[in-house]
Amino acid sequence: MKLYDADYAPSPRRVRLFMAEKGLSDVETIKFDLPKGDNLNEEFATKNPLKKVPVLELDDGTCISEAAAIYRYLEETCYGKPLLGETAVEKAMIEMWDRRIEFAFLVPVFQSFQHGSGIFKDRMTPVPEWAGEARNNAAAFFTILEQRLAESTYVAGEEFSAADITAVVTLDFAKVIKLRPGEEHPNILRWYELMKQRPSYSA
Amino acid sequence: MKLYDADYAPSPRRVRLFMAEKGLSDVETIKFDLPKGDNLNEEFATKNPLKKVPVLELDDGTCISEAAAIYRYLEETCYGKPLLGETAVEKAMIEMWDRRIEFAFLVPVFQSFQHGSGIFKDRMTPVPEWAGEARNNAAAFFTILEQRLAESTYVAGEEFSAADITAVVTLDFAKVIKLRPGEEHPNILRWYELMKQRPSYSA
Repeated sequence: MKLYDADYAPSPRRVRLFMAEKGLSDVETIKFDLPKGDNLNEEFATKNPLKKVPVLELDDGTCISEAAAIYRYLEETCYGKPLLGETAVEKAMIEMWDRRIEFAFLVPVFQSFQHGSGIFKDRMTPVPEWAGEARNNAAAFFTILEQRLAESTYVAGEEFSAADITAVVTLDFAKVIKLRPGEEHPNILRWYELMKQRPSYSA
Repeated sequence: MKLYDADYAPSPRRVRLFMAEKGLSDVETIKFDLPKGDNLNEEFATKNPLKKVPVLELDDGTCISEAAAIYRYLEETCYGKPLLGETAVEKAMIEMWDRRIEFAFLVPVFQSFQHGSGIFKDRMTPVPEWAGEARNNAAAFFTILEQRLAESTYVAGEEFSAADITAVVTLDFAKVIKLRPGEEHPNILRWYELMKQRPSYSA
């Protein structure tokens, strides 16, 4: 299999961290330069009509896009510790936290960055006023995450999971809008240190 | 178990359709009036800190929010035809289409509605300019969906799946921003008729 990847973008990094946690170190990678528009051609559109990375291309040509769908495929086919849960409740809790992080943290961080910086304005129409409001929404998620991490070691419970991957990748990416946890978030900072100590963090 | 539900909102309806497809007809339901703010109290925040419906509360008090996480729990615990796939590739394809619909269709439709109508302006700050741009983004997804449904009977392949539920609920909800498929989308219209014929559609 083959991964269509890019530097800096959060979604491909989610997949790289997931692969590192699963011990997959030898997957062939094609790295796109997104600002240059490597992804904006009709050949790549046959792999993902939304023209976004990551895409995992299987040996038979099947293409899986969306980080969470790649999580699912790798969870089902690779050895290694489960990252999407084992019991029905664990699976639901991980899915729940993964979506909360995506919708209430990753989406607003990403929108704030795109609309505020004007990056990719060749392919979307920035609304600068929305950048500020989206940033407020992303910042509000720190309160939810702090409260959660006061109750549990990891995002979805006492075990490390895919939800921690999505959260730490988003937290790192939030640097682009200068949104960082502070002294008022001791549990986020405690958990962040745990994440940085994992070998997968450098992926 | 018990479902915290609401009329008109797309995410609770996703769960009602999923339950109907699984043959679950006797789940206790607590219906919230969202414009009145039934969901905006601290007691409900203990069930979902984001104060959103749907929430599925299990008999032991465990609360699962986010429609897709409830899909997952019900898939794992209920009889009935699988709606999240059986093989690794099927599971990944359904997850991929479900996320594409959420991120590229449901999120922009919802944002366009909120920011354009000013509904819930007691709890968020509308950016009217973003309403128009989000609507353009949602409209662009029709091209992707039409192309997909020219290739396959259902959204994620030849079998009905959870991705069809998310798609039809979003398509119905898109009426609030007057976004409808037209003659240029014959395959969306063909699939839409299939969806309306399912007994679950009225859920």
